[in-house]
Amino acid sequence: MADRQAIKDVKAVVFDTFGTVTDWRGSITRMGEALARKKGIEGVDWEAFARAWRAGYRPGLHRVISGQRAWTPLDVIHRERLDEILPEFGLADRFGEAEKADINLFWHRLAPWPDSIPGLLRLKTRYLIAPLSNGSLMLLASMAKHAGIPWDFIYSSDMHMAYKRDPEVYRNAVRLLGVMPGEVMLAAAHNDDLEAARKEGLRTAYINRPTEYGADQVKDFKATGDWDVIVDTVEDLAERMGC
Amino acid sequence: MADRQAIKDVKAVVFDTFGTVTDWRGSITRMGEALARKKGIEGVDWEAFARAWRAGYRPGLHRVISGQRAWTPLDVIHRERLDEILPEFGLADRFGEAEKADINLFWHRLAPWPDSIPGLLRLKTRYLIAPLSNGSLMLLASMAKHAGIPWDFIYSSDMHMAYKRDPEVYRNAVRLLGVMPGEVMLAAAHNDDLEAARKEGLRTAYINRPTEYGADQVKDFKATGDWDVIVDTVEDLAERMGC
Repeated sequence: MADRQAIKDVKAVVFDTFGTVTDWRGSITRMGEALARKKGIEGVDWEAFARAWRAGYRPGLHRVISGQRAWTPLDVIHRERLDEILPEFGLADRFGEAEKADINLFWHRLAPWPDSIPGLLRLKTRYLIAPLSNGSLMLLASMAKHAGIPWDFIYSSDMHMAYKRDPEVYRNAVRLLGVMPGEVMLAAAHNDDLEAARKEGLRTAYINRPTEYGADQVKDFKATGDWDVIVDTVEDLAERMGC
Repeated sequence: MADRQAIKDVKAVVFDTFGTVTDWRGSITRMGEALARKKGIEGVDWEAFARAWRAGYRPGLHRVISGQRAWTPLDVIHRERLDEILPEFGLADRFGEAEKADINLFWHRLAPWPDSIPGLLRLKTRYLIAPLSNGSLMLLASMAKHAGIPWDFIYSSDMHMAYKRDPEVYRNAVRLLGVMPGEVMLAAAHNDDLEAARKEGLRTAYINRPTEYGADQVKDFKATGDWDVIVDTVEDLAERMGC
């Protein structure tokens, strides 16, 4: 296999989390629906709400990555976008401040795709596994605890003070482990994330998640690069990595 | 109980590892003895070797903390001390470079005290748990994997670019979690570590490890401050923390 040579030196497999390990669209939808039932709110399309919330993510990050805005934690960016979309969904006056703060923590409680935990448990037997995510440490640690994700350690955006695709994120991940770039593999459902990682010398694994964005998905329906490994699930990745 | 109020806001319990969670002296002794058997080396007091190795730790860190030396990873400091003591134990020419590199990894494979894993598993049900250690990320992640330590995440000295008792370590730990200082508790077997943590507003738990240094132990036979919790084991800490 073409990737046998490429992967033999890998010591750590680091993962994009939003979309790759966890299903943010399904999770936010379900949590929104549950909250609506509890509060007696009707007529809100929570799946559209989830997509609208996420649609503020890349633009919000971009302002930080491009230097237009000083370092801003992801929880703040999530909250700003939440405040933008609540009126758009007729929810401007439905929640108090404590409730809004809790809704913002939906992102701390995302559920994994069905193959994620089984695959990670297998990978963990042979490799160090960690998220390489734009999430905050509290977000990622809470998510792992809530979902039972068995990370060996966590890389959060606060540790790098940078968001992917800023090259600094990938460089710092390699530096902190004290290894060579080719000893770290990024697994992600996003081709541009893998491209940025490859530029820094990391190994790459594409995990296909063609339903991540639902109606909003415009790319990442398949691998668009010759990544070291190309699979459909984390379990397939474990298989390909000899676990 | 006096500590009830103090601990009610705690969200994360972070641990000193060398001596508090793991028994470096017993572990290094056993690994040295096993290596000696394999290599047919006789007449070395491996327990004295372990103590001699550790005796270079504080002075080595102090040069970095005091600014006399630029940031130097702990694995380098361990290796420098190893090279110093090998001749002192008649081992100058007994090991090749690859073997010396592997002996340096003894610190990556320390075993926990018997109460550590049971106590941490209980604490993990209610709190985020992590090391706040002078170890490197690779050291701490390898140690956790080897020993089955169930950390939620890892703080390594490389993340802070500072060693305890530099105040920056405690401040950065709080900052990265995005919480108030009083929401983080340091658990340690070393009174001066707790003192430095308390100065930054952290909660404190003293775990008594009076045999840590063996014949070299000159302090930390008991709590010398009115720490929020004072116990003999991690299991006792879990009990006191309501787990």
